[in-house]
Amino acid sequence: MTQETPQTPQTPPETQADDDGRNERHRSRMVRKKALIDDKIAQAQRDCGVIVITTGNGKGKSSSGFGMVVRAMGHGMKTGVVQFIKGAIPTGEEKFLRRFPEACDFHVMGEGYTWETQDRSRDIAKAEAAWDEARRMLRDPSFGLVLFDELNIALKLGYLDVNTVIADLQARPDMQHVVITGRGAPQALIDAADTVTDMTPVKHAFAQGIRAQAGVEM
Amino acid sequence: MTQETPQTPQTPPETQADDDGRNERHRSRMVRKKALIDDKIAQAQRDCGVIVITTGNGKGKSSSGFGMVVRAMGHGMKTGVVQFIKGAIPTGEEKFLRRFPEACDFHVMGEGYTWETQDRSRDIAKAEAAWDEARRMLRDPSFGLVLFDELNIALKLGYLDVNTVIADLQARPDMQHVVITGRGAPQALIDAADTVTDMTPVKHAFAQGIRAQAGVEM
Repeated sequence: MTQETPQTPQTPPETQADDDGRNERHRSRMVRKKALIDDKIAQAQRDCGVIVITTGNGKGKSSSGFGMVVRAMGHGMKTGVVQFIKGAIPTGEEKFLRRFPEACDFHVMGEGYTWETQDRSRDIAKAEAAWDEARRMLRDPSFGLVLFDELNIALKLGYLDVNTVIADLQARPDMQHVVITGRGAPQALIDAADTVTDMTPVKHAFAQGIRAQAGVEM
Repeated sequence: MTQETPQTPQTPPETQADDDGRNERHRSRMVRKKALIDDKIAQAQRDCGVIVITTGNGKGKSSSGFGMVVRAMGHGMKTGVVQFIKGAIPTGEEKFLRRFPEACDFHVMGEGYTWETQDRSRDIAKAEAAWDEARRMLRDPSFGLVLFDELNIALKLGYLDVNTVIADLQARPDMQHVVITGRGAPQALIDAADTVTDMTPVKHAFAQGIRAQAGVEM
């Protein structure tokens, strides 16, 4: 990760001349930066539905997906959520989003993590039923953004065929956005995506003996 | 990042005996996994407010913060948001969360990015006013979770003093959660936090000429 030492903020002993010089250097640096950014923006002018994947072992994959659902709802878009794997414990995001059934079509298809159910055949049947729901959304242009939470885990465990999933994703409406979360995203899915972030853990409260907190982890 | 080849899903030619064997191996692996996870959970029993930082150059830092705000709202917690730096364009998250003024106290203190304003003194004054708002939330135990969006950038640019920020964070109510986002989190802040994720870019739609999409990036 990039580590940068923060500059010290303006301290009282600085003279007005120092201050003016610093402000001027800042201004010309920002003018150059703006030109670079404006140029990059000018080059990126295409609009289309994107596939976003959040993967890796760090905290923030599902919460990032739910943040995008809320963003889309703020723009008046209809959203859909299918939660794979999770489902035994109702979460804060589920409680909240179920209050807006017109704006967010929320489905929880799992029955807790696979190490709780300990039944592979049943897990596969549940994952397939969840994908049927996901496919229905991918065929419906009224959905502006859909979130398939923990789909990567269902793929990693071999509960769903990655090629079938990619084919359904690629056949979706042009302007529909798809967010897919979970550890261990398969390479074929990464190749098919537009934006991919690996959420890399630096540290986690759990390791210091703090259990999962409502509002943060669930 | 961890890349794992997904297992092939069950294929028709498998016999019932193969199937039973695979299911049994899966079950005993999951029994062992459950024991390990249950043991870890038994060791993490402390409840307290946590500081979560999302940093790095990848997509998902702010959206993850907004996902946690929604989670907390789902659990009936009062939340607060202060957006540093951003502010010139109203975002989806702002439009949505302003609909719930009782559950989410939303403040946008910036005036767009620093390369747009090109005025360091004015940026510093705005950052200080934003931190006053943040400090008010950190002194009020009615807030269950607060999000300081892009605070890392204000620290990195030296607009705020990191030691002052850390002292205010540490003086907050015991059960209050704080989420801080933005590139370039200073090491002292990382040291003071409980959970830190570096959002590492694997690929980004922008590089393929796709501009920022409503619902995804804003």
